[in-house]
This record gives sequence, structure tokens and C-alpha cells, in this order.
Amino acid sequence: MTERRVRGAGANFAAQIAACKARIEGVLEALLALPDPGSERLRAAIRYSVLGAGKRLRPTLVYLTGESLGAPLERLDTPAASVELIHVYSLVHDDLPAMDDDDLRRGRPTCHRAFDEGTAVLVGDALQALGFAVLADGPMSGTPAETRLEMIRLLARATGTAGMAGGQAVDLAAVGQTLTVAEIENMHRRKTGALIECSVLLGALAAGVTGGRELAALRRFGAEIGLAFQIQDDILDVAGDPALLGKATGADAAHLKPTYPSAAGLTAARQRAAELHDAAIAALEPLGGRAATLAGLADFVVNRAS
Amino acid sequence: MTERRVRGAGANFAAQIAACKARIEGVLEALLALPDPGSERLRAAIRYSVLGAGKRLRPTLVYLTGESLGAPLERLDTPAASVELIHVYSLVHDDLPAMDDDDLRRGRPTCHRAFDEGTAVLVGDALQALGFAVLADGPMSGTPAETRLEMIRLLARATGTAGMAGGQAVDLAAVGQTLTVAEIENMHRRKTGALIECSVLLGALAAGVTGGRELAALRRFGAEIGLAFQIQDDILDVAGDPALLGKATGADAAHLKPTYPSAAGLTAARQRAAELHDAAIAALEPLGGRAATLAGLADFVVNRAS
Repeated sequence: MTERRVRGAGANFAAQIAACKARIEGVLEALLALPDPGSERLRAAIRYSVLGAGKRLRPTLVYLTGESLGAPLERLDTPAASVELIHVYSLVHDDLPAMDDDDLRRGRPTCHRAFDEGTAVLVGDALQALGFAVLADGPMSGTPAETRLEMIRLLARATGTAGMAGGQAVDLAAVGQTLTVAEIENMHRRKTGALIECSVLLGALAAGVTGGRELAALRRFGAEIGLAFQIQDDILDVAGDPALLGKATGADAAHLKPTYPSAAGLTAARQRAAELHDAAIAALEPLGGRAATLAGLADFVVNRAS
Repeated sequence: MTERRVRGAGANFAAQIAACKARIEGVLEALLALPDPGSERLRAAIRYSVLGAGKRLRPTLVYLTGESLGAPLERLDTPAASVELIHVYSLVHDDLPAMDDDDLRRGRPTCHRAFDEGTAVLVGDALQALGFAVLADGPMSGTPAETRLEMIRLLARATGTAGMAGGQAVDLAAVGQTLTVAEIENMHRRKTGALIECSVLLGALAAGVTGGRELAALRRFGAEIGLAFQIQDDILDVAGDPALLGKATGADAAHLKPTYPSAAGLTAARQRAAELHDAAIAALEPLGGRAATLAGLADFVVNRAS
């Protein structure tokens, strides 16, 4: 079954990522299609924030991990949607004036600029609830209740103080400060890495890999590419091509945000990303031939230019 | 078993409510005791917002419903904590400058005044995640995974666009507008009623009542007292005693918020609250003798002066 599904890293890899992206767009569109006569503005702001833009890295990780391990695609739609909903909620709240105060996101006005600040708070709040709701409720053919619960546990941990919310708090407190490399890694692992790691694990759980050596390997893989992804983000903000990124560079420095390159230098940052990439690939060893697609994804995360 | 636990409405009722309150304080304190070296400020703001104040109505509903149906108290701590964490998150976000812009809550500076606005956004975000995390993870002796999942489904529905977040969006949009009584009831049922109804249902589920006539009765009971509670809140804001309330009255009018009394008059509001109280008691009929404590709680909700 994995032979049929997974084409491996190579010429088709970009097509595979594009297919994941197209699939999650459809899933999210269907999820958010219901009208809400009581709060049309909130519904419009939710659709504006979720649909039509974004790399969809986290759902892609769910799909590619799950597929690599033999899960049918239909069973991956729900966990893929849940991580993207949580991710979008965090973007909407991070953009708020009291947080990063960003006017643009994915080339469009941020939610609080397109709508208003109160609505943006509610969009994030509602999306977080929806992220948990779909895991508890959404179609996930044949997945035992205990596995769904474990998914919810992982998602809640990745979202809360131990993960995203805690990492964002460190980030807020770090503005204008000098952080050590270790402190920056801790912040990145919580703020960005935790949900990326969770995405890999949800894909594995949906495929029935609920423990043991393979799950531990995937956890390690997810943690390493999660940190690598954020370091690459930091690098692109210093040395990326604005035309490819679709946004101006230098935002971190303008916001006085400590980053990996600001603490360790650009060369060390590139070296650390490569090191994490290699550690991620090495972690996949217990998966044997089923690791090809995920290895390709690790390359993609570190080599991306946008 | 219910004979031993439930003392019924009467002289002991206030003591019973006080016992629930004391119990949930201990449960919440234990939940939030862990240090967090990475984000001490967030942790302090979470503890400030959750601990030491509040009526604790929602956990009390979980305890009293569960106890009435024979659940051991230890099994109710986790669902009781989950609804209070969600409730506190909603208060912290509702108080934000972009929402109700309140400086005082429970007689103390609101979270964003005591800390800062970004931290208050994160406190709400983290508490929402924690509310789901405890239901997925917390001790709940002998509760099947499927029942926990159903609890999470109910909590997510009560929290999201169909419930609290949607109701708050209607509330935001309603400032300065004239709403019909039906529109106000819809807003109140979502913003306040949904989580109160959910609290009753979680208590029932923890007691093993997972469907059928009794659960339907409790759902109806919860919905009626949920709306009654908010109408009584509206009434107290117009006609309450500031000394008993511990806060100034007239806040709704000052915020240009449509309320039940502003739409229908104070007399009609009192009549509607009494009607809902009676409907709530009537709904309890299938529970027979086990309804005594819950009936007492309905009295308490409508007759309260603070």
C-alpha cells in the first residue's frame, strides 16, 4: 500500500505537496461552509483568515506522514484540518496590535485590519475551539476513541503553555532583550516546533502507529524539523529574497526580536539548520523505506526560499 | 448512594454550594501549581486570573448534577475544572480593550490591567487549551474514552461559534443597536447559556448518564437556567444593590449594550426569569427524587442578589 501511495522525494515531490495543499483547501472550505445567521461578521472573518492562502505545511505533514505509514487519505483530513485551524488561530492572535502588531499577512491585510480587533480576538478563540471540535467530532474512519483522545492530548499540549502559547509569551518578553542560543531554541521549539511535531504525530496516530520505536522516531523527526523550520524562517528574514518571500525582509530586527542569526550569526544559523536536517533524517532510520517522503520534506523545510 | 450525598435544597444548600466552591479552588490550585521557567509572567497571569475569586457556578453545576446522579466527587473534579478554565478564558478576553474594555473584574484589576494586553490574550488562549487538555488527560476514574470524547465535543460546541465565541460576536455587534427580545435570548443562550448547559451535561456524563430521557431532561434544565442566569444578571445590573454585587450597577447601559430589561422592561424580565425557572424545574421531572438539589440550584440562580 505504501508503495502505491508514496512516490518518494524527487521530481514528483512538488506535485505531492501541491496535492496536499489542494486537498486541505477543500477540507477547510467544506468545514467553514455553514452559514451562521447570528454572527455573519465573525463567520466572514474566520473564512477570510483560514481560506485561500498559506503554505499549509502542518496539514501537509499530517498527510505525508500518514500516507507514508499506510493511512487512507480520508482518515487524515480531520487531523490535517485541526492543526491548520490551530495554526491560523495563532497567526491571527500573534498579529494583534498587543502582540506583533502586523498589518499584512500572506500578502493581505491581517484579520484585525480587514475587520476589527475584537473580531480578530474572537476569530482566534473560535478557531481554537474548532480545532479541538474537529478532532473530537470529524470523520476519521475506524479510528478508536482512545486514539482520538490521544490526538486531542497532543494538540492541547502543543497549543498551551508548554507549546505555542508559552512560546509566544517568551517571544513577547524577549522583545528588545538579548537571548542565549539555548533560550532562542527553547522559544522556537515551543512557539513553532511543538505544533509541527504534533502534526507528524497526528499523521502517525491516524495510521495506527500509536507507540513504540516508530512513534518515538517520528516525534524526534518532527521536533528537529520544527526547530529547523523556524531557524530557516529567521534566516530568510535576514537573507531571503523579498520577491520570493512575498514580503519585506528585516521584520524581526525592526520588531527588536532576538532570532537565531541575531544571537549566533548567519553562518552558525545555517549550520544549525543543516545539523537539524541531518538529525531529522537520521531519526527516521527505524521507518526504513517508508521514510522517503518525509526525508524529502526535511529537505524542503531547510532549503525553502519562501 | 444519592441519599447519602445529596442533602436537598434547604438549610444546608448554602453549605453545599460553599463546599463545591472550596473543592474547585483546591483542584484549580493543584492544576496551576507547576512552575514554568520559560514564561513566569504568563504563569503568574494565569494564576491571577483563575484563582481566588469567582462564583464558580459552572463547576458547582458539574458537582451537583454529578452527585445527584451518583458520581463520586473525584470523578467530577476534572470536568468541573474544564468548564471553569473555559469560563475564565472568556472573561479575560471579554474584558480586553477591543471587547468590553473593563478595568475591574471580581473587584480586582482585570488581567490586561494587572499585566498587559498581550499577556491577557495569551492567558485566554492558554486557558482554552488547558480546558480541553484536562478533559482529555485529567483523572476521571473509570470514565470510558468515548465518554471523555463526548465531553470534549460538548465543551468545544459550547465554546465555539455555536456557543460562547458566537454569542460574544453577536454581543460586540449589538453595542448601540436595538435588538428584539428573541435576538437577545439567542445572544444570551450562546454567550452564557451554552457553557452552563454544558456544565450540567458534563456532570451527567461523568455519572454515566450518556443519553436517553434523563440526559435530554438535564439538557433542557441547563438551557433554561443558563438563560435565566443571564437575564438575572441583566436585571441585577439595572436593579441590583451595588453593595451586595461588589460592583457598580448600570454597566450595560454605560456600554450601550442591549439587555433583556432594556428590550422588554424590568417587569417582563423578572417574569421571564421566573418562567424559565419554572420550566427548568419542570424539565427535571424524569429525575424524580434525584432532582432536589438541582431544583435548589434553579432557585439560587433566579433569586440571587449578587
